[in-house]
Amino acid sequence: MITDTIQEWHRLVKEKDAAGLDKILSENVVFHSPVVHTPQAGKPITKLYLTAALHVLNNDTFKYLREVISGQNAVLEFQTVIDGISINGVDMITWGEDGRITDFKVMIRPLKAINLVHKMMGEMLEKNKK
Amino acid sequence: MITDTIQEWHRLVKEKDAAGLDKILSENVVFHSPVVHTPQAGKPITKLYLTAALHVLNNDTFKYLREVISGQNAVLEFQTVIDGISINGVDMITWGEDGRITDFKVMIRPLKAINLVHKMMGEMLEKNKK
Repeated sequence: MITDTIQEWHRLVKEKDAAGLDKILSENVVFHSPVVHTPQAGKPITKLYLTAALHVLNNDTFKYLREVISGQNAVLEFQTVIDGISINGVDMITWGEDGRITDFKVMIRPLKAINLVHKMMGEMLEKNKK
Repeated sequence: MITDTIQEWHRLVKEKDAAGLDKILSENVVFHSPVVHTPQAGKPITKLYLTAALHVLNNDTFKYLREVISGQNAVLEFQTVIDGISINGVDMITWGEDGRITDFKVMIRPLKAINLVHKMMGEMLEKNKK
């Protein structure tokens, strides 16, 4: 049981605690990437994507901006800079009665940023699969 | 004074009431496109973008999905299909004490969709400028 999903998510991001994903993700969580249409179903693949994101996006310039939270839904807007390119995005998070995340969707703007993240995430996912 | 900004926004989208943008937008509204980093400041340029969006995205398949609203912030997730390509996005809307929109940001996924919207919005904006 997680009493405050978003508070726990923030702790996890701050500490780059990829192992902590196990506890916060539901077994049947679905991940929606900013790049690809097809949803990625299940905890293993979602962990793979979020671990890559924790490493790729979460540098010293990473910060959350607006947070809009209502019921069991949150939208956390973030900003980071990679290779001099400003990346602005949202983590759209839904959780269940037990507080564990059931749906995680990421969107990114502008176009230049999504192209960069596409490239970097691809490289990171390849490395993690090995 | 607008008592329910999001309700008024929904009416406007449903009726494709581009003229109604005048009433709902603050003079100093800032628009953030899914494609370009630089914010677009002021009512005239914001009206131009939102009018183009009302025409490009708002076809028979357009519908809103999740809505996360808190205080004077709303995130409205939408979905539409254009030329067989699924477009999933968010309208991130902030308003002032008078209910008028002060900030409007759009993000779109996946990559294929943002490329299509980039192309279509460009054509529409060119047409509207003439």
